[in-house]
Amino acid sequence: MKPIKVGLLGIGTVGSGTFNVLKRNQEEITRRAGRSIQITMVADLNTARAKELTQGECEVVSDANLVVSNPEIDIVIELIGGYGIAKDLVMKAIANGKHVVTANKALLATHGTEIFKAAQEKGVMVAFEAAVAGGIPIIKALREGLTANRIEWIAGIINGTTNFILSEMRDKGLDFDVVLKEAQRLGYAEADPTFDIEGVDAAHKATIMSAIAFGIPVQFDKAHVEGITKLQATDIRYAEQLGYRIKLLGIAKRTKVNGSEGIELRVHPTLIPAKRLIANVEGAMNAVLVQGDAVGATLYYGKGAGSEPTASAVIADLVDITRLATADPEHRVPHLAFQPDAMTDTPILPMSEITTSYYLRMQVADRPGVLADITRILADSTISIDAMLQKEPAEGETRTDIIMLTHQTQEKNIVAAIAKIEALPTVVGAVTKIRLEQLS
Amino acid sequence: MKPIKVGLLGIGTVGSGTFNVLKRNQEEITRRAGRSIQITMVADLNTARAKELTQGECEVVSDANLVVSNPEIDIVIELIGGYGIAKDLVMKAIANGKHVVTANKALLATHGTEIFKAAQEKGVMVAFEAAVAGGIPIIKALREGLTANRIEWIAGIINGTTNFILSEMRDKGLDFDVVLKEAQRLGYAEADPTFDIEGVDAAHKATIMSAIAFGIPVQFDKAHVEGITKLQATDIRYAEQLGYRIKLLGIAKRTKVNGSEGIELRVHPTLIPAKRLIANVEGAMNAVLVQGDAVGATLYYGKGAGSEPTASAVIADLVDITRLATADPEHRVPHLAFQPDAMTDTPILPMSEITTSYYLRMQVADRPGVLADITRILADSTISIDAMLQKEPAEGETRTDIIMLTHQTQEKNIVAAIAKIEALPTVVGAVTKIRLEQLS
Repeated sequence: MKPIKVGLLGIGTVGSGTFNVLKRNQEEITRRAGRSIQITMVADLNTARAKELTQGECEVVSDANLVVSNPEIDIVIELIGGYGIAKDLVMKAIANGKHVVTANKALLATHGTEIFKAAQEKGVMVAFEAAVAGGIPIIKALREGLTANRIEWIAGIINGTTNFILSEMRDKGLDFDVVLKEAQRLGYAEADPTFDIEGVDAAHKATIMSAIAFGIPVQFDKAHVEGITKLQATDIRYAEQLGYRIKLLGIAKRTKVNGSEGIELRVHPTLIPAKRLIANVEGAMNAVLVQGDAVGATLYYGKGAGSEPTASAVIADLVDITRLATADPEHRVPHLAFQPDAMTDTPILPMSEITTSYYLRMQVADRPGVLADITRILADSTISIDAMLQKEPAEGETRTDIIMLTHQTQEKNIVAAIAKIEALPTVVGAVTKIRLEQLS
Repeated sequence: MKPIKVGLLGIGTVGSGTFNVLKRNQEEITRRAGRSIQITMVADLNTARAKELTQGECEVVSDANLVVSNPEIDIVIELIGGYGIAKDLVMKAIANGKHVVTANKALLATHGTEIFKAAQEKGVMVAFEAAVAGGIPIIKALREGLTANRIEWIAGIINGTTNFILSEMRDKGLDFDVVLKEAQRLGYAEADPTFDIEGVDAAHKATIMSAIAFGIPVQFDKAHVEGITKLQATDIRYAEQLGYRIKLLGIAKRTKVNGSEGIELRVHPTLIPAKRLIANVEGAMNAVLVQGDAVGATLYYGKGAGSEPTASAVIADLVDITRLATADPEHRVPHLAFQPDAMTDTPILPMSEITTSYYLRMQVADRPGVLADITRILADSTISIDAMLQKEPAEGETRTDIIMLTHQTQEKNIVAAIAKIEALPTVVGAVTKIRLEQLS
């Protein structure tokens, strides 16, 4: 069979990884795919670098439009990133009847509905294994491996930068700012790390997984997004003493509020029991834990970023598309796991309606009755306490920390209780609240 | 589209799980598959029980031949097990143009070549996600998720019974026999546990994974199979002190011997560093670690057995087949990941040719020069020592244990060295040898 021809938009870190792996493992990949897969055209503004990387083995252009409009090209790989040019090019590629592979989580989490609809109408595939958790084949697991299951929840460490920072903060007892600088020096964090440390990147990925898991449209605008910038070394230490680790989790969960179904979609620092496997995912590694009603918990672990790990996912998509390029759409896996006419409109809940457990840290005056006041407020709000830690005040100090872990309650309930606690004259400053998941 | 009709052979633990999950999640599965999947016929010798389980919702027969020859049936699920009747029925189903889903690792590891060839010729699919690691979609990950990679090695905890026993032995410091009885009482081990505890089951699964990873035929007869029956609590304890856990691993690995490629295929108790994620897979859980040249290490974790976890894999296969039932064979994933005409004959190496590290325990007389004699023998065999542990003899004892961890060497080399060590007058009895893998 004649080779399948691929056009690559953007030959940066992941693009060059894709080019190199495809070349290095060409024979092995062809033996699997049954057909040779060749990158025949590359678009990059830096044509000199692109030419150096591709060593004359394919055409190099600076105008990506030449790739998406080239009738010779079967599949377009979009590795430009962002919502602007990337979206135009993906839409044009689809309009021109080309299949698309993209690692662009931001694009799919925000414009996925429009993109998948266009692809559906044109009869082409848009594949995006590389958009979530890099080299871990989690999209395939969710979309195909677990089709028997009603997915109950997903909890993922899906941002390597923040996991590296949290691991270092815990290991070395350092503060966020210090570790961020170290992460930037080592290349684990970008010069502008906002998208990572503020949880935006993780929320893009969690949004995509929520759609695939529950058959809902991608709705990034409804996700709760909270990063790790306010996290203190103190809380990591207290959590540790109570048998927990703090991880930035992307969570997508089915739930019921007053008898009606809802979806929780949230990214925030989370206490998880230290003995869970996922709590021991360290450094820049990623892992996704999925709870299905039949299979129970399954976990997928690996590198969530980097040149060749991400290329691994891009190329897996190329092979899938190569197999199904000429197949009827009915033979293909639906973009969002569910048939387009079988999606649901189960609402994503506002944060006030979610239910979870909480870690609370309160700085209090070391006076009789303080604990009684706090526990009374919690009891009145029907919030049960699961564990407590109170330190003796340090020598010469009149203040001390009280740490409490609560049982499950609704977010609006704990927020109201915290307001009352903060109003107590014996409680100093704001109460620190971190959500806690048992993941069992 | 009209429903796809499924015939089920054997409605025991996994069969009833499959029936129940398919029924419970029917709506959700149909929304994914785009087509209803119905078990319309069940064959089981115990027809009374089968009728009770299926509650009149499908035809129940005692003769499985009636299912595989029924022209109405599109897919046959084989859950009988073993190599005899199961093989006949699978071959008949294929001959009758039916797709087959099986959880039968023993059958595929021994007769896979014949079965896949027949399926290929007839243009039908034989799917077997449930045959390895139960509900974990590891076959899909290897066959589709990691297609970009040259797989370097796979190491899996793929037998829940033995992992449960080893976890208990370590946790409670108990001996094998005691824990086996406990495992049988709790239902983690069968009345005749031979296949599990002797490593046969794990070797079946490792054999199947080796074929998919490297594009070689299934060759169970060439696998090295060693169980956990001879493992002593002492060695688990010493390993722990040195920072290692002992797990029964199924290993499939590419290697080179004198410049030519070979495959290591072996199941045996293995020391692995305690800090590795896979070392912390406890109880009856399964996990498979895969090293690819592009993606690096990825790990897949979940329940490796049980009614609904295994059913989850069976049904995922049903959905895949439903999608591709009428597709051209070129649109389908090859049975063993590589195109049938692109398999290789890279040989599986005899055990003497494999390379790994070793844990050695020697009981020695507490006399001067013993250690010098042993280390001299190892040095003469160019075996380096990585770590050593020597206990003071207990009060009144004249013997003591010496434990050594070696660097990598060939198995025949260590076997020869051990023979020399055992011939020393100061060494008492046999040297205990357990293989060690760094898994990095």
